[in-house]
Amino acid sequence: MSHHIDTLQLKVAQLSRKTHELGIPVMIIFEGIPASGKTRLSNDLLLQLDAKYTNFIATKSPETYDLRYQFLQKYWNTLPQKGDINIYFRSWYSHYLDYKENNIKHHQYVNYDSLLKQISNFESMLKKDNYEIIKFFIEINEEKRQAHIQQTKSNPLMRWKVQEYEEVIPQDVYLNEMRRIIHNCNDWQIIDYTVREQAITNMYLNIIERLEYALEKYQKHEEYIDGEFNSHFSTSLFNIEESKIKKKDYQHQIVELQTRMREIQFALYKRKIPLVLVFEGMDAAGKGGNIKRIREKLDPTGYEVNGISAPTDVEKNHHYLWRFAKKMPKSGHIEIFDRSWYGRILVERVEGFAEHHEWKRAYDEINQFERMWTDEGTIIIKFFLCLDKEEQLQRFKDREQNPNKQWKITDEDWRNREKWDMYLEASQDMIKYTNTKLAPWHVIKADHKKTSRLEVLKTIIKRCEDVL
Amino acid sequence: MSHHIDTLQLKVAQLSRKTHELGIPVMIIFEGIPASGKTRLSNDLLLQLDAKYTNFIATKSPETYDLRYQFLQKYWNTLPQKGDINIYFRSWYSHYLDYKENNIKHHQYVNYDSLLKQISNFESMLKKDNYEIIKFFIEINEEKRQAHIQQTKSNPLMRWKVQEYEEVIPQDVYLNEMRRIIHNCNDWQIIDYTVREQAITNMYLNIIERLEYALEKYQKHEEYIDGEFNSHFSTSLFNIEESKIKKKDYQHQIVELQTRMREIQFALYKRKIPLVLVFEGMDAAGKGGNIKRIREKLDPTGYEVNGISAPTDVEKNHHYLWRFAKKMPKSGHIEIFDRSWYGRILVERVEGFAEHHEWKRAYDEINQFERMWTDEGTIIIKFFLCLDKEEQLQRFKDREQNPNKQWKITDEDWRNREKWDMYLEASQDMIKYTNTKLAPWHVIKADHKKTSRLEVLKTIIKRCEDVL
Repeated sequence: MSHHIDTLQLKVAQLSRKTHELGIPVMIIFEGIPASGKTRLSNDLLLQLDAKYTNFIATKSPETYDLRYQFLQKYWNTLPQKGDINIYFRSWYSHYLDYKENNIKHHQYVNYDSLLKQISNFESMLKKDNYEIIKFFIEINEEKRQAHIQQTKSNPLMRWKVQEYEEVIPQDVYLNEMRRIIHNCNDWQIIDYTVREQAITNMYLNIIERLEYALEKYQKHEEYIDGEFNSHFSTSLFNIEESKIKKKDYQHQIVELQTRMREIQFALYKRKIPLVLVFEGMDAAGKGGNIKRIREKLDPTGYEVNGISAPTDVEKNHHYLWRFAKKMPKSGHIEIFDRSWYGRILVERVEGFAEHHEWKRAYDEINQFERMWTDEGTIIIKFFLCLDKEEQLQRFKDREQNPNKQWKITDEDWRNREKWDMYLEASQDMIKYTNTKLAPWHVIKADHKKTSRLEVLKTIIKRCEDVL
Repeated sequence: MSHHIDTLQLKVAQLSRKTHELGIPVMIIFEGIPASGKTRLSNDLLLQLDAKYTNFIATKSPETYDLRYQFLQKYWNTLPQKGDINIYFRSWYSHYLDYKENNIKHHQYVNYDSLLKQISNFESMLKKDNYEIIKFFIEINEEKRQAHIQQTKSNPLMRWKVQEYEEVIPQDVYLNEMRRIIHNCNDWQIIDYTVREQAITNMYLNIIERLEYALEKYQKHEEYIDGEFNSHFSTSLFNIEESKIKKKDYQHQIVELQTRMREIQFALYKRKIPLVLVFEGMDAAGKGGNIKRIREKLDPTGYEVNGISAPTDVEKNHHYLWRFAKKMPKSGHIEIFDRSWYGRILVERVEGFAEHHEWKRAYDEINQFERMWTDEGTIIIKFFLCLDKEEQLQRFKDREQNPNKQWKITDEDWRNREKWDMYLEASQDMIKYTNTKLAPWHVIKADHKKTSRLEVLKTIIKRCEDVL
């Protein structure tokens, strides 16, 4: 029997080297009540895997720090990159129970029912990106469990650990809720730890099966079936009335709006509501200028601007939403995205950086992603700054002539301009498929810079006032 | 006058684009009592800089989370990468005062006097790596300051902010201590905010001067003067007696030591003492095997193994110690480094990845770096596993023949072997120059795997017991 386990251990080590080489990310969850054998099982597994690409992540009870962020934030932050293996000792399921049973309100909008939905979206989003998620629930005979506890208690150096067991969620509450979760979802593997060797054998057999399956799936290069997708071309969204404004009126109005914006910032801070501003739009449509006007009177300790450019190597090795999830604001803060996750269905679609099936499923993914935050009270306001093609040409030329603006115009801008129609089509699809109720798009005509700036500020203030 | 400021703003924007292009990291500090004008000045600067490479970092009072880490941890984590600009609203100086004045003891070993020394080491380490550090201390006429406060108080939405002012360190304590600091170090720029335009002008003039100087220094490609450096070759350190051990004795001893190691882990956790284990040594000397024996009975929630390979793009764009600083353990945790920051003076020296002056100054830098942690009670234990050249050949061949070990041996290993003497010389210099009292090297002869494993475990246990 013992030799048998050796063989299984070797096999798992072997398979994990293959998933590593092929860049398949693996997430292995261990849930179970204290002293059920989670530590021993997960540790046995951990010791077989190469530390270079294995991470052991323990879920601790939420602290003030966690409560400032979205429910799944810490799991987003520590997502394994391609080829890495994460072992979760207690996972987002325990995290959910910590929230629910301790009645944690990280702000007034928390909604426990939505958390399980979030988990399910999170997992399915990852699975679509070839993440292999293996879930173990460890059970044990109560007599055996008490023996474990006694053993720990008998060592004076370890005794305090047993006290910690009693501080977590009551055992029966945890068990009931977990059994309900497992009952509703058939992807859990239940392991009985009463007989140690058997438990270890079962765990390894299951991991081997799952990794072999993941490798097979990967090697088959499965044909992805695209959902139907209507790329009907229409420009209606962009026919917006816009009028010029006098300089004097502008000066007066902008200062008033900026002052109000600063008050809004403080009000959001007091109410702990996070605000996300997303800016997309044609090149030279004035994203930067608009953002500058928003920021001008804000307290710099409470907001951050994120200029999004091409992903780094490390970012490319993660789920594409990872780098954005890590930047989402904590409670009461403002995060401004100058370009955003919508790059997936704009530049990555048009330039072919994302596969067809990848950007096609991104509409749903993005809606789910934004929902994770809006469900917890984050205000998301998305702007599309829309520019006339002739006006863009004019601005490009201006930039080339102005020595203080030359750095703003590159060959890439000219190349993008040649693909104007493709970008327009991609933008229209984007607005069509991601214009959700909780995170709607605001299409702003930007041919007149001043008018668009006032419009953007008014929109933000209005949306925030509705919530405040 | 107003036009004058516009010109200065444009100039700073221009210069910052150049430092960005050339990859010079810039850190700009704002210190001063509340309502002295720090926000207005730093915000004016922030608005001139490209958000894509500018970060605004506010130092808040330390929280439980911070107190688990080394004093400067959060500044290490957020270090600007090459070409980025960090603006610090309150900096490590305020952080120091928060610690000192609030008498924060994050563990029994904290030593306030050493914190200023740490700051000075931190800054000088960064300056040597071309970081440009600009420090502003903002002063203001008290009457004017009271007017600022009244203005804020008069807005019902902002009134609470004034209360926050009163929660920070008493103003006179802050001022006295900061003046003492500034008196001792002539690299501060004092700005009087009493007349706003003048303050802004002064700030920009100073930044312009400093950035121009940084650019000039960079473009001159200054000749670095190497300190004298004795690379005398000697093998004495590696002549260590070692004897074989019987398998039965080994089995008995290793289990005993591992059980003790687990007790040590819990004792460290209870006492909140972090432990860092560094493993360096020849290829195939058994680093992995040794680490495995240490981990075998440890609680996986309390330690982490860091396998160090070539740095990523992002890591290359930071100070070379950044990726290690980010991984240092929090209180009560164990971090095991399978290869480490010593790569700078081993592989980077031998392979020429680091310039001569870079690896030469690294001895001092590393000693200072380790000191930042040992000064606060972290135990650092460094092992060099030393292998006979013939024994290495034997192990390489074994690996090639064993299908379960083939992955461990690569062409690179054979290439490194050809440079045996160079690596040996680099290793000896390393031990000679970084064998400090607080973080000494333990050279372990590793020709007999079993003996070396016992030796390593005994050493760790002994070092920890001395502290516990």
